[in-house]
Amino acid sequence: MKKINVGILIFNEVEVLDFAGPYEVFSRTRLEKGAESRKSNDSAPFKVFTVSVNDKTIKATGGLKVISDYTFFNSPKIDILIIPGGYGTRPLLNNEDVLNWIKSISNDSEIISSVCTGSLLLAKAGLLDGKRATTHWGAIGALKSINKNIQVIDNRRIVNDEIITSAGVSSGIDMAFMIVENLYGEQVASDTAKYIEFHRSKENV
Amino acid sequence: MKKINVGILIFNEVEVLDFAGPYEVFSRTRLEKGAESRKSNDSAPFKVFTVSVNDKTIKATGGLKVISDYTFFNSPKIDILIIPGGYGTRPLLNNEDVLNWIKSISNDSEIISSVCTGSLLLAKAGLLDGKRATTHWGAIGALKSINKNIQVIDNRRIVNDEIITSAGVSSGIDMAFMIVENLYGEQVASDTAKYIEFHRSKENV
Repeated sequence: MKKINVGILIFNEVEVLDFAGPYEVFSRTRLEKGAESRKSNDSAPFKVFTVSVNDKTIKATGGLKVISDYTFFNSPKIDILIIPGGYGTRPLLNNEDVLNWIKSISNDSEIISSVCTGSLLLAKAGLLDGKRATTHWGAIGALKSINKNIQVIDNRRIVNDEIITSAGVSSGIDMAFMIVENLYGEQVASDTAKYIEFHRSKENV
Repeated sequence: MKKINVGILIFNEVEVLDFAGPYEVFSRTRLEKGAESRKSNDSAPFKVFTVSVNDKTIKATGGLKVISDYTFFNSPKIDILIIPGGYGTRPLLNNEDVLNWIKSISNDSEIISSVCTGSLLLAKAGLLDGKRATTHWGAIGALKSINKNIQVIDNRRIVNDEIITSAGVSSGIDMAFMIVENLYGEQVASDTAKYIEFHRSKENV
């Protein structure tokens, strides 16, 4: 099976659950239900990997140390891009390498998405201009201030306007399930949710 | 403020969300609500760290690479022990170093807990003898087979019988919130859940 490449950007002070939630959902998705198919990665429809700017060792919130699979210089093609959030997004808003990388990946990716304040980076890269988008409730003002042409939505868990943005932290898990559902149907998404015993917020708030 | 030490065991093929969920909850808990107090770790009531057997670089499910903060040889005192699950628990069931470590930590810890199939390790270490406990729905039989004196509960997200066990994967997030609530009250737990936009499964199923 040709796998769909899911690339997750990680950086210092990335919020742990922002990247680990979607990582879990995509890496544990299988097209058949149950535990047996999840013993191996062979049957996984997604290939999930982390990408960092240049230093491979990242310190996430709370100090969790993660080694990225790739850097900007050697990352494979990304079909689904996930930009997580966290306070570590703030210094990256002025990092041209990061903004240019996001722009260049967005030209070739099928799906561009963010969790939490990852949307600030998408906004700064110019990808949310004229679109509806959301972010963590504590960063609604920050998102508006980056670009007045973004229609910032503050009462939805996921906003899909070509680019998919989600609200704070755990919303990224629901967003990942929505992408799985759009690609493989409701049954595959709900079987995977059952495997990880996650109660999806179907009402999208 | 004297911090409460939360030690999370990690190992190859640990399920990502099993450790990352509780990591997120404990590391992002603050005694005051809102985003401001979460900009720094100074105000955190918990000090969260990961512990591995001896090799510090761990490959979690899907291939996520994590570097542990400590090994069995240099871990600080653990007040709250979290044993996550994943298929990587199976080889550890015959690892005397791991079982002895769990037993020795349990003598000095305030709280011993597991997520998902982490309960298999607690059972094998003899800590669940005569107790009620739960695990991932796919491992109910495996838990029973380790010790017939465990009263295995298959319809609860969290079982608290001196030792706290939780059901599969995401249940560990609810379990972490239950521990936070027991220590600091419902308001602190729900403020933290609001910060990470997690909908707690209060009905415990």
